Amino acid sequence: MRIKIINTQKVKEKYVMDALEEYAKRLSAYCKIEYIENRNPSKIISNKSYIIKIDTNGEQLSSEGLAKEIKNLGISGNSDITILLGNANNIQPNYTLAISKMDFDIGILLIIIYEQIYRAFRIINNAPYHK
Amino acid sequence: MRIKIINTQKVKEKYVMDALEEYAKRLSAYCKIEYIENRNPSKIISNKSYIIKIDTNGEQLSSEGLAKEIKNLGISGNSDITILLGNANNIQPNYTLAISKMDFDIGILLIIIYEQIYRAFRIINNAPYHK
Repeated sequence: MRIKIINTQKVKEKYVMDALEEYAKRLSAYCKIEYIENRNPSKIISNKSYIIKIDTNGEQLSSEGLAKEIKNLGISGNSDITILLGNANNIQPNYTLAISKMDFDIGILLIIIYEQIYRAFRIINNAPYHK
Repeated sequence: MRIKIINTQKVKEKYVMDALEEYAKRLSAYCKIEYIENRNPSKIISNKSYIIKIDTNGEQLSSEGLAKEIKNLGISGNSDITILLGNANNIQPNYTLAISKMDFDIGILLIIIYEQIYRAFRIINNAPYHK
């Protein structure tokens, strides 16, 4: 599975980059993950990709629920997933996921996404959740 | 206002500590914030403190909703707040707050709490949300 995370905003904090690096390392066992910052994501999203937009107006899932969604995407042949963060109102997603009712700093939201994807793959593989 | 964050678990990741340090610095303009790791918080919680437990079974609030709660606590004379993370089932909180349906890594949950408290004070003070 190939997961592309596209963020329309810029993230500068070192602690965010350190966290992403750590989770990307752990995720390398399960998927190919790529992080891109781009203000105009419509130009770079493959039309074969299943697009998940992160938005407080979306549907909330438990971590187990997200794991099930990701597993089902794999089973139904969607091996290319794009996760969209920030302002991209011109793009029609396949699914809109809400993490919380709360607004998060974009860097922190990014850390959450990486951790939830890692957690999902641990759940899918019936593996204990190690740090 | 004095906010004590008590975590029953241990957090080791450097990126978490870096994030907390950054938000603690920003929060110093608004409150006295203290972070404590303790496996038995019942021994160290003041009985004058208003206890908020973080748990996925609690009530979800928007960031504006949390700001309103914190403002109201200040108005009603509760200037001592304890935020409880981890396993502390023997403690009866005054309020149980859910961030999300998802389970988060405890370090990431801690970053979220700090950021939401900072965001709340920015909202209360009608200040733009700067990084």
